Amino acid sequence: MSRFSRDRQRLTADPGEKNRRPLRLYVEAPLAVGSAVALDQAQAHYLTNVMRRRVGDPVALFNGIDGEWFARIGDIRPGRGGMLEVESRARPQIAEPDIWLMMAPVKRVPIDLITVKATELGASLLWPVITQHAVVQRVNLRRMRANAVEAAEQCRRLSVPACRSPTALAEALEGWPAERILLVCDERGGNEMIHQVLTRSKAESWAIMVGPEGGFTDEEFALLRGLPQCRFAGLGPRILRAETAAIAALACWQSIHGDWRENPPPSKS
Amino acid sequence: MSRFSRDRQRLTADPGEKNRRPLRLYVEAPLAVGSAVALDQAQAHYLTNVMRRRVGDPVALFNGIDGEWFARIGDIRPGRGGMLEVESRARPQIAEPDIWLMMAPVKRVPIDLITVKATELGASLLWPVITQHAVVQRVNLRRMRANAVEAAEQCRRLSVPACRSPTALAEALEGWPAERILLVCDERGGNEMIHQVLTRSKAESWAIMVGPEGGFTDEEFALLRGLPQCRFAGLGPRILRAETAAIAALACWQSIHGDWRENPPPSKS
Repeated sequence: MSRFSRDRQRLTADPGEKNRRPLRLYVEAPLAVGSAVALDQAQAHYLTNVMRRRVGDPVALFNGIDGEWFARIGDIRPGRGGMLEVESRARPQIAEPDIWLMMAPVKRVPIDLITVKATELGASLLWPVITQHAVVQRVNLRRMRANAVEAAEQCRRLSVPACRSPTALAEALEGWPAERILLVCDERGGNEMIHQVLTRSKAESWAIMVGPEGGFTDEEFALLRGLPQCRFAGLGPRILRAETAAIAALACWQSIHGDWRENPPPSKS
Repeated sequence: MSRFSRDRQRLTADPGEKNRRPLRLYVEAPLAVGSAVALDQAQAHYLTNVMRRRVGDPVALFNGIDGEWFARIGDIRPGRGGMLEVESRARPQIAEPDIWLMMAPVKRVPIDLITVKATELGASLLWPVITQHAVVQRVNLRRMRANAVEAAEQCRRLSVPACRSPTALAEALEGWPAERILLVCDERGGNEMIHQVLTRSKAESWAIMVGPEGGFTDEEFALLRGLPQCRFAGLGPRILRAETAAIAALACWQSIHGDWRENPPPSKS
């Protein structure tokens, strides 16, 4: 399931796809009528050699700030670079749900999966948290970011989730924002169902935390219980893998507190 | 993410794991006090060479009917076979949620993912449905079954979801059970949120259907709308991949209609 390269888009690069919907690209440049966006060597290679685009072909751009824009390829030289001409705004930027996902680092395949699926499910921040039973200590943040960008391009999201460096649990809880509920997925049993926890609060800012496969230590549970914003929730009788728990909890949150009353944008945009 | 072989268990086959929790195996034999369960060549290889188990080591068994049982390895010969001696019942069989997952076949990586995650999330039946825009027509049912068995063993579930042969949509809807709600995930927009659809009905039997990436055709929508048990639900403004929609919808269903008020069994069982 490596999404580090653009395999997924490559797989869908058939002529029908090309005609149906303009390619979406995340860029860091400001977007406005008439502005030009420079393409680096890798982007020019991707657009020409992988996606078979040429001068004049449409591309949709977003930067997480200015909404989504129609643009066209103004100049492109494989192996060198190129330029996109920004034409008009397709969609304004909108406020997005304020939901963080905090997870113990896991191996490469599940962390890739969590990154991609959490992006599709609208997480605003991906934040690895180091716990005492963590099997994995390191996270390749560059890879995480690349996966998040690609998933955001694919799912037509207007932003890319922020990716924060791994932080020790105690440090992550220090100075925890007063208004942000921390929902901890906990398989020890005796907790309320996630649906009850979610429906009881009208808070707008939340974080979902999924622990390591070995669970939290007693000391860590004490730390979490000490945080007034912390709520524990169970996810049923089956032992979910960390990535399943993360995806499931995010879906439950979105269905109640998120933007799921919105519809996908028309496919022409 | 191939789970066809037992890579996942192999990765966790450390001595701590061995001491902490007996290995779980799905078997087809009846389970009762004093009964003997024969091991075939592959199972004997797996227990000895992969999991490093020996005569006298404990194994937990379930068959989807008789609950979970403590057993011990009575005899084992790598490359030949062996025998497990069933000792006592650890957990009775319990009624499980009645939730089918119907999905358009997708490529190997996402169908493996759907199978494993739907098993963790308690789907009772996995049923590929062929639609007009389906990119993939075939499903390797043997592989699907093997993935479901392994996921059930891992997540401590007492059953393995049934896997039904791919069926054309029209045929699948013929003779649809009167009491079973069919919740269709639909990204066209204009639908109720899944949370509303789920909380409005007290039905106990449900099916979740996720269409192909190309969507349903008008003809297929007409067919679905013609079924009185059919409800359409949206999953928000981002375009979810088929596997994300399936996992997300199952999680939402479980959180409201499923068995998530139950806790995991004590880890000694």
